[in-house]
Amino acid sequence: MTALSLDSARKIIDAALAKAADLKLKPLGVTVLDAGGHLVAFERQDGASFLRYQIGSGKAFGALATGVGSRAVANMAIERPHFMQGLSGVSEGRVVPVPGGVLVRDSAGAVVGAVGISGDTSDNDEAAAIAGIEAAGFTPDAG
Amino acid sequence: MTALSLDSARKIIDAALAKAADLKLKPLGVTVLDAGGHLVAFERQDGASFLRYQIGSGKAFGALATGVGSRAVANMAIERPHFMQGLSGVSEGRVVPVPGGVLVRDSAGAVVGAVGISGDTSDNDEAAAIAGIEAAGFTPDAG
Amino acid sequence: MTALSLDSARKIIDAALAKAADLKLKPLGVTVLDAGGHLVAFERQDGASFLRYQIGSGKAFGALATGVGSRAVANMAIERPHFMQGLSGVSEGRVVPVPGGVLVRDSAGAVVGAVGISGDTSDNDEAAAIAGIEAAGFTPDAG
Amino acid sequence: MTALSLDSARKIIDAALAKAADLKLKPLGVTVLDAGGHLVAFERQDGASFLRYQIGSGKAFGALATGVGSRAVANMAIERPHFMQGLSGVSEGRVVPVPGGVLVRDSAGAVVGAVGISGDTSDNDEAAAIAGIEAAGFTPDAG
Repeated sequence: MTALSLDSARKIIDAALAKAADLKLKPLGVTVLDAGGHLVAFERQDGASFLRYQIGSGKAFGALATGVGSRAVANMAIERPHFMQGLSGVSEGRVVPVPGGVLVRDSAGAVVGAVGISGDTSDNDEAAAIAGIEAAGFTPDAG
Repeated sequence: MTALSLDSARKIIDAALAKAADLKLKPLGVTVLDAGGHLVAFERQDGASFLRYQIGSGKAFGALATGVGSRAVANMAIERPHFMQGLSGVSEGRVVPVPGGVLVRDSAGAVVGAVGISGDTSDNDEAAAIAGIEAAGFTPDAG
Repeated sequence: MTALSLDSARKIIDAALAKAADLKLKPLGVTVLDAGGHLVAFERQDGASFLRYQIGSGKAFGALATGVGSRAVANMAIERPHFMQGLSGVSEGRVVPVPGGVLVRDSAGAVVGAVGISGDTSDNDEAAAIAGIEAAGFTPDAG
Repeated sequence: MTALSLDSARKIIDAALAKAADLKLKPLGVTVLDAGGHLVAFERQDGASFLRYQIGSGKAFGALATGVGSRAVANMAIERPHFMQGLSGVSEGRVVPVPGGVLVRDSAGAVVGAVGISGDTSDNDEAAAIAGIEAAGFTPDAG
């Protein structure tokens, strides 16, 4: 398993924010977690509200915790609300089950981390995350 | 009450993972709790995401907390959501109300522990738990 | 009050890590919080252990919560342990009372944020934080 | 970075318990965490009290969180009690600062996980952890 380096995390954030600028998105918070769910890097753009780290981190953490992108976690929450309630409990409230949390896979398919973005619509958040992951040479898995 | 020995817990885990291999299930985490809801043994297969202990443990804990297998706990959650909300609160978020948490009963019918499995579909998780419990000479109660 | 921009936070982190490289410090985590104690930016260097965000954030949060640098918070903890115990409680465990959490003051003396660094000795962590804050054109207040 | 496989975790546990039998130790709980602090495997011997998982896990987690074996974490707690209080807070009470939490390093020196043992004296717990790690072909770092 490749570790997700700080250098890679910076590339992901820079490219995600560049994509956001292209799409004229609202101010974002971009979280990069390692495979164990721990913070590697984060940036919050000026004007983004103050809980963006917690929300984006919750998307990325939920993806890592379940092994699928947070779009799939969101579907679980709709189809099996009681599972999501339980997951929220056992993770001590760390899971945010909406799109925008994207797994980072290496060339062998192994999960090396996750990106969580919050600030615009969930679909746009996810698009920025995917762009960032691809620009850094990894494969995004949005769920 | 017979105590659930480590030797029995190992047999349960080995047989559950053997069943999982037969069924070609995704990588699993297998939790064995004693009658007091405390951890006896756990194994997480390579490739299983990192919250498998918490999720499987939440299934087994919910079964022990209510005295029925977690399939019945899942039904409670659907039929009486406010009860489940309260149960989540008083257990400090330790209950995951979905199938895959199976009570371990001895020959007298007493509950000596519970097995919680997470990693594949809830139905498959439960099938592996049942196989493990039976192979160790106990009676499974899936709810 | 000037808001602490992401651009300033990046300058602080870059300069803090440059100082750390000069001093040959161990791998660091560098946290930048705004005046409300919310995360603006964070970077964890390769090889730094995984709780660096929480520890560094706890230094910066404690500084903001009391209005003095965390070196002074550390002295409070020694001189008035019961105050610190209470502070830990009301902050839900978010305060780490050791040096390395440095207030960021603007030219008028107003607190616009705080930097928290963790990874080397507390004194070295603090030196890197001070260097970062000065390089970004602010006044450090280490306590 | 090598991932800590379930097969390696089993070898560590088996060898730690064999060492414990040689030394005629009291019943133990043996926890193996991965590099992200997540549970890979656990076994609690018959007769060990029920919080052994939490205690042993707290030793291993504290080692991973600070990057040193828990013997060094214990020294930190004695020399800098307020740091330890802060660490306890930001880790949400997950750190147990006593010997018996030993880092697992691979041949390149990278931390791939940690073993935490609880049940006998801290020194004996640590001896069993070291024996287990060595038997599995890794390098123990007790702090």
